[in-house]
This record gives sequence, structure tokens and C-alpha cells, in this order.
Amino acid sequence: MFEEHTVVFGIGVSTGTASAEVVKVLPAPGVNEAEPASTDAAADGQRVREAMAAVASALKDQAEHSNAKARPILEATAQLASDRALAKAVDKKLKKGSGVTRAVHDAVEDYAQLLASLGGYMAERVTDLYDVRDRTICELRGLPKPGVPFVSSPSILLADDLAPAETVGLDPELVVGIVTAGGGPTSHTAILAAQLGIPAVVKASGIMDVEAGTTVAIDGGAGEVIVHPTEEEIAELHERAKRRAAALAESTGAGKTADGFPVKLLANIGTAEDGEAAAKKDVEGTGLFRTEFLFLDRESAPTLEEQTETYTRVLEAFGTRRVVVRTLDAGADKPLSFADLGEEENPALGRRGLRLAQAREDLMDTQLDALAAAFEATGRKADLRVMAPMVATTEEATWFADKARERGLPSVGIMIEVPAAAIRAKQLLSIVDFASIGTNDLSQYTMAADRMQGALSDLLSPWQPAVLQMIRSACKGGDATGKPISVCGEAGGDPLLALVLVGLGVGSLSMATKKVPAVRAALRMHDRTTCQQMAAYAVDAATAEDARAAVENLANPKIKDLL
Amino acid sequence: MFEEHTVVFGIGVSTGTASAEVVKVLPAPGVNEAEPASTDAAADGQRVREAMAAVASALKDQAEHSNAKARPILEATAQLASDRALAKAVDKKLKKGSGVTRAVHDAVEDYAQLLASLGGYMAERVTDLYDVRDRTICELRGLPKPGVPFVSSPSILLADDLAPAETVGLDPELVVGIVTAGGGPTSHTAILAAQLGIPAVVKASGIMDVEAGTTVAIDGGAGEVIVHPTEEEIAELHERAKRRAAALAESTGAGKTADGFPVKLLANIGTAEDGEAAAKKDVEGTGLFRTEFLFLDRESAPTLEEQTETYTRVLEAFGTRRVVVRTLDAGADKPLSFADLGEEENPALGRRGLRLAQAREDLMDTQLDALAAAFEATGRKADLRVMAPMVATTEEATWFADKARERGLPSVGIMIEVPAAAIRAKQLLSIVDFASIGTNDLSQYTMAADRMQGALSDLLSPWQPAVLQMIRSACKGGDATGKPISVCGEAGGDPLLALVLVGLGVGSLSMATKKVPAVRAALRMHDRTTCQQMAAYAVDAATAEDARAAVENLANPKIKDLL
Repeated sequence: MFEEHTVVFGIGVSTGTASAEVVKVLPAPGVNEAEPASTDAAADGQRVREAMAAVASALKDQAEHSNAKARPILEATAQLASDRALAKAVDKKLKKGSGVTRAVHDAVEDYAQLLASLGGYMAERVTDLYDVRDRTICELRGLPKPGVPFVSSPSILLADDLAPAETVGLDPELVVGIVTAGGGPTSHTAILAAQLGIPAVVKASGIMDVEAGTTVAIDGGAGEVIVHPTEEEIAELHERAKRRAAALAESTGAGKTADGFPVKLLANIGTAEDGEAAAKKDVEGTGLFRTEFLFLDRESAPTLEEQTETYTRVLEAFGTRRVVVRTLDAGADKPLSFADLGEEENPALGRRGLRLAQAREDLMDTQLDALAAAFEATGRKADLRVMAPMVATTEEATWFADKARERGLPSVGIMIEVPAAAIRAKQLLSIVDFASIGTNDLSQYTMAADRMQGALSDLLSPWQPAVLQMIRSACKGGDATGKPISVCGEAGGDPLLALVLVGLGVGSLSMATKKVPAVRAALRMHDRTTCQQMAAYAVDAATAEDARAAVENLANPKIKDLL
Repeated sequence: MFEEHTVVFGIGVSTGTASAEVVKVLPAPGVNEAEPASTDAAADGQRVREAMAAVASALKDQAEHSNAKARPILEATAQLASDRALAKAVDKKLKKGSGVTRAVHDAVEDYAQLLASLGGYMAERVTDLYDVRDRTICELRGLPKPGVPFVSSPSILLADDLAPAETVGLDPELVVGIVTAGGGPTSHTAILAAQLGIPAVVKASGIMDVEAGTTVAIDGGAGEVIVHPTEEEIAELHERAKRRAAALAESTGAGKTADGFPVKLLANIGTAEDGEAAAKKDVEGTGLFRTEFLFLDRESAPTLEEQTETYTRVLEAFGTRRVVVRTLDAGADKPLSFADLGEEENPALGRRGLRLAQAREDLMDTQLDALAAAFEATGRKADLRVMAPMVATTEEATWFADKARERGLPSVGIMIEVPAAAIRAKQLLSIVDFASIGTNDLSQYTMAADRMQGALSDLLSPWQPAVLQMIRSACKGGDATGKPISVCGEAGGDPLLALVLVGLGVGSLSMATKKVPAVRAALRMHDRTTCQQMAAYAVDAATAEDARAAVENLANPKIKDLL
């Protein structure tokens, strides 16, 4: 079906345009169920060793041509592929009569369980080990390599969906676009692409039928994928990119609507380096400083001094601008080795965020002490605000607010990401000074649909009227108490949806730094009354699609250049 | 601390009173990390064999004294404890130098993985195998047996929390009360105790410090646990039980408030037998017929004929009364072997309920065909209503309503258990004829807290004002569209909370059959205006505790006899 010119529409999740030949991320083929049992273990063992050697050599080669982030991972994986103990374990399986791919599979499985049981660094190698398994099986089966192929010239990546492990070390210089058949606006693919600034389209139905090497042009704003584009189409995409660049170049200064209603535009950051980089850009501060990075992938909690230093760097960087710090949001998909509360059936509904902090009060105390010390060290000049994740009840809000205020922190808030917090915003805001809506988690819980489940991505559209209604409820709580509401999820970085959020009553938006200019330009094109009208239409719409269509209809047509 | 008379308050989750000596459910002790490595594998192997034989013999003994439900499970477990292959696997571990308990642990683990990988019946034996492991390790370590002890005279069970596997075959004749240190109102312990009609108190802090054999008196309504009760206290409990029995004996007929506002009182059922038993009681029908039992634990889906027969039996049993059937709610913690959509990170937020039915439309079609056939076969005389679980959007509601109506089913509804459905009830009810609120799941998602996570039980109180607010939102949707709203979660069976639900606008309540008389009696004591006042207070309360206290304060003092 894709031998000729075809246009496929998906969901644009990372703006920008690109045209290039495609490479395909293939799924792992697994064991060859039809293979014969091993009758000559020595010969088969030799075959497996040769396959593993080929894999090791390909990985080493790839490591040499990779960037600094990917290189050590590839080198370590190459070492695993040269592991003699693994080859011997395969021999044993062969001697028991397993076929070659089955032997590789089972030997790796035993080894993986051993690594997993060791925990820590060793456990983290399991992913790499599976990579070796899949590559070796492909080699043995004479199939093309699974996973992200080695790319040496600018290419567009096609995949069913990208797993976190597959995207480590993706090089934005070489991967100029991403198109997936599955996924959704909050999928890992979408978030990663937006972070790296790679144009991306998800839910492009049937896209995996396109042959590797085919030329494809994409518009990651409009969600358009053109297979075998004409020269005119490539030129038009180029024009769009130029119009977009021009519109964005004009977008500077403080965020406000066409009629001058101020909407602070802030950057989401994760590290002190992020903060220093963002502070150099035209943003009004950071609306979400995720402090997890300080805590993840280490044996013990960061010390007071270490944390104070990091927070001081961030506060210094932003000067008098706003800095909203979210306290540790670990647990769930971000476990901590030094604060492990045990396995959970449903980690997203488990002891994460503030719940973990309540079980490990020492972590919260040290973090707040460090924030207070950093604030003092920088002369209390920043507009510092501190908020806790996963707050659901007034008791939790009080617990956190008391701790933060005891330390003289000037502004205390909560994340609104649990539906209970959205519907009870008034009561919670009577305790704290502000709230910030995490639209990704709020959507996940409101729709009872796992953010990471590609199959549920329709339910997770940020345009779902139910989610918008939850946001409205939060804003009404803000109105009733005179406290400000901001948004720091992916939704805030979508120029069209940003208008709706402002219409609902959101006063500031925090997003990937790269997304700020487009949102700012969109705001400048619309007055507040139009935003409010958009919000009313979107909330009343029957479906997410209807909501988006109604808002597009009310928008200035020039907004298309920003998408 | 429990050597003398002490009163502990927990949360009463299953009404009734009892006094008896306690037996304790002990946690599995696990491997003895301090044990020496095996230096004489033959002697150690013999020791393990003797321990296993003792376990097998104790299990056989217990099987002989057990009821028909528990016996086959205990016999099968005894067989596993006599398994020669398992003993040999332990030998191997011993020869490699493992200590005895480590050898048992690791050999069982290998075996468990084998069983799990075989799937189906074999995979289900893993629980029993772990039971053998824990008992054998206790035998080897000279420790008391873990799990539910063998009980031969009426006893009260003390536990940290009860896991589903531990409660199979609990005999309500012998286990006359349950007290747990952990758990919560929606925990497995609470649900099971209510089903079996065993008085139970959860979250009784420190209760595991009570020595086995101590006499304890409990009130499963008030949540009171008296350690070393006086004779007066036992007599008072006895009086309470008598007053309660008298109040309940007077409670008959249709549900209504003191001023005659009708509230249908219905029974939750899970099988045709349940239905036939419930229909003989003084209930106005079934408000929740869970059809999962027809689908679980089998290799292929039930046929049209098989389903038609079951539904016909239930419709026959209830005559012209109401029968609300919930279509298959599988997935999450209830996987189907013939409709497995793969592993999920967070099954409770995954492809469960209607989402599974959309992926496997054939299952839904056959079920609705069978319901239509059963309705015809019984002369269309029942007040039959059919509803789908886990509906979140208007698209899903339309998909289901179209299917049900095409088949001539007279009344089509949805469960409200996803927060999106509660907040968008008006839009959803403009598509369907009625809605029923599943308070357990609605609480889980609204509070973003796993129902099965004992550590989060405070968040999961059905008195959480946020959950009550969600219910109010659903009822407002009912009002706006003139469509009825019912409740079929645990909340509806709590006499005090039932008043609040009626005050919020709920028109019918479905619960365990045993709970109907107490709820009916509570309703008869209060007029509708009082219920509405209670609802207003509860929704406005700052915390779940405040909500309950405010409502108790407004209630007729006689309601205490019903709790």
C-alpha cells in the first residue's frame, strides 16, 4: 500500500518538519519455534559463539561511531556479548537438546534472573542482556537486527512504539524525525521526542508497512506523514518550517494574551544544568523543577550539602525570576534503592510522591532544609515556590505546608494530579498558597488509563473533556480562594490547548523550554474572551476530537503555522 | 501491653459481635540467613525429607477435619509436600552447599517458575507450593506454622492482613471473628469477612502483640476490640447483639426512608446459586450480578447456551423483580486465559472491563445475545437492566448502548467507577438509561490509591469527601437527565453511609444480602431531609473522619445498634 505517494495522518506530538529516508525499529523475533533440537551440541555451540562474536563486533563498531551518552552503554553491551560464562550456559542448554535460539533464550533468562536478584547496577544490566539475546537470535536466524538500527546519515525512525531502553542515546543530529504506529500524546516516544526537539508523529496507522529506505516527509505539528512525497510537498513543508521560524522569531518577552492578560511562561527543568540553560532563554522562570534526578540511580540519599549546592545553582541562575521546586516524586516507575517500600501490584496507584515522603520523613526534611538554606544563600531574592507531588487530602497538604513554613519557605503549594485534589481544590487551596496541575498524571487517574499503555492512548488525549472539566474544577477552587493555578504537564506546551487552559483560568504554563516561543505566539494572537469561549466549547464537547475541532474552529487560522 | 484489660479501636468492616480465644496468622519466616552451608548433603537431604513428611502429614490431618471447600486444596497441597522431584531438587541445591532453608527456598522457586510457565491449572498451584515451602522452612527452623492455623474450636483470627490465598476455606463456624492490624474497609479481609458474615475489625493498631490463646471480644460494627474482656463487657456485647437482632428482625419489606421516600435495596450476586439464594430473601432484586465467574478459571469462553442457561436461572429466580447484570469485568486482577492482552505495568489502569470487551468484541456479543435469549425465555417479565464496567467516555457508552439495544434489551446502563464518568455523568446519561456507582473502584481512582494496598487504606475510606463529591457529581448528572443512579460498591452496605448516599440522590443500593436488613432499618429511622443534611455536611467536611463524625452526630442514636 505504500509503494506510491500516500498521506497518513497521526497525532503530531513534537513540532517541526523533516524529510528523509526511513529506518525501521523492528521488534525482537524471539525463539524459532520450528527449529530442530540440537543433536550436535559442539557444532551448535560454535554457531552460537560465532553469532555472539558478530554481535559483539557490530556493537563495538557502533560504539565507536556514537555520541558520548550512547558509547559506554554500547561498549558494556558488547562485553556482555563476549561473556564466556554466557556461552557456556548456552552449551549446557544445547547438550540437553534445546534448539540454538531456544538455548540462547533460556540461558539468557537464567542469567537475567541472577542479575536481577543481585539488584543495583547488576540488575540494570538486564536490559542490555536482553539486547544481546535479541541480536544473537536475529544473527542465528538470519533476520535483520531488532531495535533501533545504527544510523549514519539523517533518517526518520519508524517504529510500533519506542520503549525507554530503545531510545537511550538517540542522536537528534541523525534521527531527524520519528513516526510510530502506536503510542499516544503522553507516551514515552512523545515525551522523549519533544525533549530532544525531534519532530514526531504517533498513532500513524499502518506506518510499519513502509519499506526501509523509502523517503518520507513529516509535519510533527499537524501530525502529517507523506510517504513518497512530491518535490512540491517537500517545498511546502519547507515553507511551513520557514513561516513557523519567522513566527517564533517574533515571539519574545513576557507571556500575555492579545488583550494583555499576563500568562507566565516557564520552563520545566530536571537538573542544575537544565536550569542554567533554561535561564539563558527567554522564559519567566521554571514552573517545574523535578528534583528526582538528585535521588535516582544512587545507593544513598543525597546529603544536605549536595542538595543545597544544586538548589543554590538553580536559584542563582534564575535571579529574581520564579522557581517552582517539586519535592521528590519517586516510587512507582522511579524506585529508589535506599527507600524501597517493596513491590507493588499497581505502582502508579501505590506509595509514590508525598506518600513515600511520609514513610521516609527524613528525606522530606533534608530536602526542605536544603531548599531553605539555598534560599538564604541567594539572599531570598528568587520568587521561590515549593510544592509536593501526589497530594490527595487536606491532611497531606497540612503535613507538607507545616513543614515548609516552619523552615521559612515563602510560598507553599501542591501538585494537582490526583482527581481528589482537582475536585477538592478549594479545600486544599485554603491550606496552601498555590497549585500546579500535572496534566499527565491527572489524565491517567481521571481516565483510569495507564500513561504508558499505548493501547489506551485515545483515552489519554489531553483534549478529553473529562480532564478539562477536572482542570476547570481546580481553577474554580483557585478562584474561590484567590490562589493561583498553573499547569506543568505536557498539555501546557501545546499552543492550541494552552489557549483552552488560559480560558479555564490557568495563570501560568510550564513546559519544555523549546515549546515556549510557540505557546507565546499563540497567546498573542488571541484575547482572553476567545480563550474563555474555547474553554467553554471544549468542556461541553462530547468527545476529545470534538473538543479539539471546536477550539481549532475558534482559533486564528495563523495558529496552524505554530503547530 | 496486652497482658491486662485493654480496648483497641480499629475500623469495623463486618458487623456482629464475638468473644473467643485468639489464634494468630503468622507471616512466613523465610530463609534463615544465618544458617551454615551444607557440608553433608545426604544428612541434610534426609532432614528436609523428614520436614516435608511432617508437613504432608499435618496437611492430610487438617484436610480430614476441614469442610468440603478446603479439603481438596489441603489434600493437593499435601501431595506437593510429598513430591519426590521437589526433594531431589533440594538435594541438588544442598550438594552445591546451600544451607537447608536456602535449599528449600531455591528449589521451590525453580519449581514455581516451571509451574508458572506451564500456565493454567499448573500455574495456579504456585500458591500451594509456596505454602509447602513456608511450612517446611518453619518445620526446619522449629518455628510455629505460618498462615492461618488449624482451628478446631471457635476462635478469633488475628493477622497483619489476610491475603486471598490465606482465606480459602475459612470456616465461619470456627472463625467467629477477624481482627487485623493492617488492611482497610476495601481490603480483601473486609470484603471476605462481610461475605462470610464474620464480624471483623481492621486497622486495630498493635493487635499482633496479643498472645495466642488470649480471650478477646470484638464488635465488628463499632470497630471495638477488647483484650481480656470483663464478664460485664461480654454481657454488654451480648446485649448489643440481641438489640441488633431485634432491630433487624423488625426490618422487612421495601426500602424507604422514615417519610416514605423509596430506596430499592438489592443484593450483589456472583453466580446462579447466589441469585437463587438471594431471591429467597427479603430483597427487591439484584443490583449487581457479576458475570465474571462464568469466564474465570477456564480454558475457553462460555458458550451462548451455557450463558443463556445461567442468566435464565437468575431471571427465573427473581421473577418480576429487578435484575441488574454487569457484563464481563475481567482483566486487571482477574485475567482470562482465553483473552489475555499481555502483561501490564499497572493492571488496574489497564485493558480491563469494557476495554477488554472492545478488544474482544466476540465476548461481548455472545454475552448480550445470551442475555437477550434468557430475557425472551423468561417471558420478558423481569425488570432486566444491563450495564458495562469501566466506561469513561461517550464513545464507549454509545458503543455498548448500541449493541445492547440492537438486541432488544430493555434498559442499558453504565458503571460509574472511573472519575471521568462521575464528572461527566450528565453527558453519559444522555446516552444510556441508568448508572450504577462502583464505590470501590471509584475511590481507588479518585484517590489514586490501590484498593489492595493496606498501607494506603486511610486514603481509601469511603468517607473521603472527595469520593462523596464524585458521587454527588454523578447524582447531579442523574438529576439533569432524569435518569436513576444506584450504588453497588461496599459503601452501600454501611448503614450510616447509606443515609449519605440517599441524601446525595442515590435511588437504589445493592450490597451483600446479609447487609440489607441493617441498611433497611437505618433508612426507616431517618427522613430524606435528614439524609440530605448529612450529605451536605459530609461533602463539606475537611477529612474522612470529620465527615463520618458529622453524620453520626446527625443520626438517630439507635443506629448504633445496627452498626
